[in-house]
Amino acid sequence: MAQPKYLTGDNAGINEFLDKFDTFLFDCDGVLWSGDHLFPKVAETLELLRSKGKQLVFVTNNSTKSREDYKKKFDKLNIPAKVEEVFGSSYSAAVYISRILKLPAPKNKVFVLGESGIEQELATENVPFIGGTDSALRRDIEPEDFTALADGSALDPDVGIVLAGLDFHVNYLKLAHAFQYLRRGAMFLATNTDSTLPNARSLFPGAGSVGAPLVTAIGKQPLALGKPSQAMMDAIEGKFHFDRSRTCMIGDRLNTDIQFGIEGKLGGTLLVLSGVCKKEDFMGAGDGTGVVPAYYADGLGDLMG
Amino acid sequence: MAQPKYLTGDNAGINEFLDKFDTFLFDCDGVLWSGDHLFPKVAETLELLRSKGKQLVFVTNNSTKSREDYKKKFDKLNIPAKVEEVFGSSYSAAVYISRILKLPAPKNKVFVLGESGIEQELATENVPFIGGTDSALRRDIEPEDFTALADGSALDPDVGIVLAGLDFHVNYLKLAHAFQYLRRGAMFLATNTDSTLPNARSLFPGAGSVGAPLVTAIGKQPLALGKPSQAMMDAIEGKFHFDRSRTCMIGDRLNTDIQFGIEGKLGGTLLVLSGVCKKEDFMGAGDGTGVVPAYYADGLGDLMG
Repeated sequence: MAQPKYLTGDNAGINEFLDKFDTFLFDCDGVLWSGDHLFPKVAETLELLRSKGKQLVFVTNNSTKSREDYKKKFDKLNIPAKVEEVFGSSYSAAVYISRILKLPAPKNKVFVLGESGIEQELATENVPFIGGTDSALRRDIEPEDFTALADGSALDPDVGIVLAGLDFHVNYLKLAHAFQYLRRGAMFLATNTDSTLPNARSLFPGAGSVGAPLVTAIGKQPLALGKPSQAMMDAIEGKFHFDRSRTCMIGDRLNTDIQFGIEGKLGGTLLVLSGVCKKEDFMGAGDGTGVVPAYYADGLGDLMG
Repeated sequence: MAQPKYLTGDNAGINEFLDKFDTFLFDCDGVLWSGDHLFPKVAETLELLRSKGKQLVFVTNNSTKSREDYKKKFDKLNIPAKVEEVFGSSYSAAVYISRILKLPAPKNKVFVLGESGIEQELATENVPFIGGTDSALRRDIEPEDFTALADGSALDPDVGIVLAGLDFHVNYLKLAHAFQYLRRGAMFLATNTDSTLPNARSLFPGAGSVGAPLVTAIGKQPLALGKPSQAMMDAIEGKFHFDRSRTCMIGDRLNTDIQFGIEGKLGGTLLVLSGVCKKEDFMGAGDGTGVVPAYYADGLGDLMG
């Protein structure tokens, strides 16, 4: 297997790298920032790429935020970015539902397990939805709920899709609703299936864990619309029309970002060591997954040379 | 593979069956009753067995109820039973923790994901616990919780075990607590791992589904203390000291009850068709699991002849 090329400090290598691509897909957390800490020379690097006419797309699996929410994060950290450059897993799911699935109305309603980011993106694509942040579902399940869910009287007959994302307000009542819709034949989608969520320098249950009760109860996996699912790559390509052979995915995780780029047959992948993965994970024996980036660097800012 | 013997209407076969066993382990829901509906001749059948000097044990995976709670269910349906004859998965877990694991105090505290049935059984075995029905955890997660969970200040340093059961009040805050304890090395136990819970003639997320976020997030399975786990059989045997070769498991589910009896090397297994499984599930090609009972009957009452 080809060894990845190390770019940090190699100015000739960096120039060659930059010349090979017209489009760069960026993971955000672990690449641009960690939490509220901006990594060195990130804004300058993005400016450099823009000045060379490169197309930038920020690809995130965080389903709790809409693209508008994400734009605010960029603004807060003083990174120049446009809403149109952001592509989150919630938006990916909304685009997939509205432009690819195209279920005939009125049976195209979505039951949402998740936060407002998902609701906002479904709304921008004019997809009808229930659940989500609805306060009527933020309560304990009662004996009469079991009966009304079992006989269907508590269910909306127009729900054709269950979309599971990260929900900080998950409860048994919502899970029971979603499970009943799935039992009645609703399609099972997920914004993303990350098992953990990095926060406060630790890990917390991620979207894939919050939705796991539905996977276990119904006995099948959802179609995931986040990295590394190629459904997300198709959705990005559908919007941005880039040439895959001249596109590079930049990320900090082998099994999401780099795998996403490799499976998408992009021209290149760049792993930055400022996030989750370390050099030992892919050099030599690796982590056993066999996912190896084409390039790696200590941090994104190293592309400034 | 030997074909199972059909007992309904075969009086000679029934007598031979009854003579072979001294102890009968009963699953409850689907065998004795369905919800609040008692099956025909159940009380009489249990009386017959008692009159012949048989030992009866009622083995249930329902973790939300303690043995005292279960006794009330028997009383309500007018089935004679003693608290000591009931063996639930919560009690099984409590016995396993107190008599088999025997973690040295004070590091033997249990963080409970579940209802009061688990708490009651842990209390009867003098096992210290937190979580469970604690109202302080029945709220939304807040930003400061992430920090306090990450730095450990919100955690009890004495927790050495996470015990997951069916929790109708599951929320992100409880899952985040349990996950942090697991990350810090707590043992991972489950009362049972049934994916679904039969209720109101439908199915709802079961204990295995409610605990699935922890399995996904930590990336390993818990040790389950309910059927078909042999840890439960060992716990039952530890209490009742029966001769396995003269013991029969009676249940309505192949992949829990019957498998439980077969793996436990009991003298026999009897499947009743009053619950989940049908004759086609084990006759001929079967359901593919290869689990076949030694005996089957339309219902438990058929043992009256």
